[in-house]
Amino acid sequence: MSTMAAAVQTLKGFRDILPEEFYARAYVKEKLIAVFERYGFSPIETPTLEYASLLLGKYGAEADKLIYRFIDAGGREVGLRYDQTVPTARFIAEHREQLPGFFRRYQLQNVFRAEKPQKGRFREFTQCDLDIYGTISPIADAEILSCTYDAYKAVGFATVVLRCNDRETLTTTLSPFASDTVSIHSIIQSIDKLDKIAAEGVIDELEKKGMDRERATEVLRAVTSSKPSSALRQIIDRAIALGVDKEALSFDPSLARGLDYYTGMIFEVSVPEYTVGSLGGGGRYDKLLLSLAGVDMPAVGVGLGFDRIVEAARELNLIPQHTGSSVLVTLFDDESIDEALSLAHMIRKSGRAALVYPEAAPLSKQFKYANACKLQYVVVSGPDERAKNVVTVKNMRSGMQKTIPRSELITNITSPQS
Amino acid sequence: MSTMAAAVQTLKGFRDILPEEFYARAYVKEKLIAVFERYGFSPIETPTLEYASLLLGKYGAEADKLIYRFIDAGGREVGLRYDQTVPTARFIAEHREQLPGFFRRYQLQNVFRAEKPQKGRFREFTQCDLDIYGTISPIADAEILSCTYDAYKAVGFATVVLRCNDRETLTTTLSPFASDTVSIHSIIQSIDKLDKIAAEGVIDELEKKGMDRERATEVLRAVTSSKPSSALRQIIDRAIALGVDKEALSFDPSLARGLDYYTGMIFEVSVPEYTVGSLGGGGRYDKLLLSLAGVDMPAVGVGLGFDRIVEAARELNLIPQHTGSSVLVTLFDDESIDEALSLAHMIRKSGRAALVYPEAAPLSKQFKYANACKLQYVVVSGPDERAKNVVTVKNMRSGMQKTIPRSELITNITSPQS
Repeated sequence: MSTMAAAVQTLKGFRDILPEEFYARAYVKEKLIAVFERYGFSPIETPTLEYASLLLGKYGAEADKLIYRFIDAGGREVGLRYDQTVPTARFIAEHREQLPGFFRRYQLQNVFRAEKPQKGRFREFTQCDLDIYGTISPIADAEILSCTYDAYKAVGFATVVLRCNDRETLTTTLSPFASDTVSIHSIIQSIDKLDKIAAEGVIDELEKKGMDRERATEVLRAVTSSKPSSALRQIIDRAIALGVDKEALSFDPSLARGLDYYTGMIFEVSVPEYTVGSLGGGGRYDKLLLSLAGVDMPAVGVGLGFDRIVEAARELNLIPQHTGSSVLVTLFDDESIDEALSLAHMIRKSGRAALVYPEAAPLSKQFKYANACKLQYVVVSGPDERAKNVVTVKNMRSGMQKTIPRSELITNITSPQS
Repeated sequence: MSTMAAAVQTLKGFRDILPEEFYARAYVKEKLIAVFERYGFSPIETPTLEYASLLLGKYGAEADKLIYRFIDAGGREVGLRYDQTVPTARFIAEHREQLPGFFRRYQLQNVFRAEKPQKGRFREFTQCDLDIYGTISPIADAEILSCTYDAYKAVGFATVVLRCNDRETLTTTLSPFASDTVSIHSIIQSIDKLDKIAAEGVIDELEKKGMDRERATEVLRAVTSSKPSSALRQIIDRAIALGVDKEALSFDPSLARGLDYYTGMIFEVSVPEYTVGSLGGGGRYDKLLLSLAGVDMPAVGVGLGFDRIVEAARELNLIPQHTGSSVLVTLFDDESIDEALSLAHMIRKSGRAALVYPEAAPLSKQFKYANACKLQYVVVSGPDERAKNVVTVKNMRSGMQKTIPRSELITNITSPQS
């Protein structure tokens, strides 16, 4: 035992999913997917492993260090899925012939990042992406906004806010301030922090990067006074026509989003009741597929922070307790086995869940087990019951117990849905 | 482009899942899980990565070579999930306090094996396991048999056969024939091939291993004439009480199953209509958790060959075509955008799936797109329709087209379920 102590634990930054957590995640997943399907998105999956060359250099130098990669037994340099956008670009290049001209896909798979583990953040976590490929139409941008909005609402968040901006406008506004000392990219990165470090912080940072303090103040003024482009206005109007609440859509001129590849509309999702941070975001990226996979195909999409959504939904009590209407069929004694199995069979045939206590044990112990497993009903059939062709049923929630004809058992346990 | 050509493809032995395949797999998964839940099994998940020391030496020397493993950035030797049994042993050791005394879990996750790729066999594939931990009761064995049977039936297989044997009986029968030259383990491995290479083949093999031909013939006679143990008889009777068709359960005295760790009942699942091979199998393994994770806990379970089941179900036409009742809302011209978006919103609000064609294009092109995407309805709203407050709807399956009041659109497209 001592020699294997190190192995008998999860790796640092990884975790097991126990049943309660599994059901909570399944609940959120189901709500999201129902909306994606309603918008005509189709599910795909890509392998966990890809050629490392596909992944490297796509997320920035810092990110490259976080990719799990190794040489496989065949001498290939391979890497674990780091996000879903890059493998999907490869997917589209490879299967283009089989895909419709406008392709809408959703994808929920785990990704792997060797980041410093933090509370609630893991090295293997679930991403949930939604993208429309093959059109520059603002209708596609609006569909992404609308579907995102509906998806978060479907999970149960009372208020969902989509902060929008236009990456192109931002670039136009800021390029006059760019120089050899402070690149446009570097200015955008600082502006992106406005939320976190406020105006003063951004000005300080730009100054530290080598910009005049006065000029840095001008940058900020230029950004915060900028107006939505007519392209962005149109997208927002279309999203409203698709049913998004007007109040949910706001223009945020300082929103920049870290990733370089956005070329048009960008947005972030937040839920005012959950203040820990953004719950997702996305935008238009018309050049990425060309650079990644040699396919000249525009795209617009969103990444929904699945693990964060589950966390937020749990904190706000939006996830109902998983119960089902499971029944424990007790084992009174060895002579009761046949009847217990027969009752379990009958209950299961009706579509309800049943388990048989596998050993003859004091009934008190069996009831305790039912409680620990949060089962809703306990059925007892001892010699007395069998002699009279009855069963005793206890509802573990109400505490009510009654003895009823065997033939009435099914109608006395609630329907599978309730 | 040329420099990235190598990267823009899946790794050898790996595959993408396209929507049609995804839906087929989701269909089978849903059918299986509904049965597992009805038997009171709970879902869990373990991480994709584990300490390599947990995995190595658990599946045999040959298997060790097939484990994907590497040193992570933190200097840990890690490995990708190779099966679900070993990580679950670790899971149980780690979470024992939070689990009920008898723990029933199901698990559907991908595993990774660096095997020579073959047609229809991949290096990343899905395993589907079902186990009951914590009891030596034959009721648990019977529950596994019965749940397995119901699961395959739920997928739609007309006939499901469970061939059963008792590993202990087999060992008792064969140990008189074991010697320093031919170990009991080696004899069992040869016997296990009876199905594939027939009696003559087994005798030849045992002879090659160093056994007298006469003695090898005796081995075969001893095995094929052996009777089910009373323990196995009892398990089979209990499975019948739980609803398994008597005809589905057969005794196969030569069934051995490769893995060393079985200690009691063993079984394999087959479907006579699908002759490519076993679709799953399992048995009792009461010592494995002790040796793997230092937890003295009996167990009985089954592995359902998920990818094989999907393949068999598809071949036998058991998987319905995924359709939904998706609607394409066409875009007549730029002036029609608002109405098109509004119609899409209305359709989605009713719970049906809709997509908006994102660009104004000839209607013929839009109808072609609807066909390619297998959408069921196409809705057209041009200036004429809007002037009269009507819409034109075409059912793409029946070919029927009609113009109806806008307010009757929803009732004229079938319900989400149909």
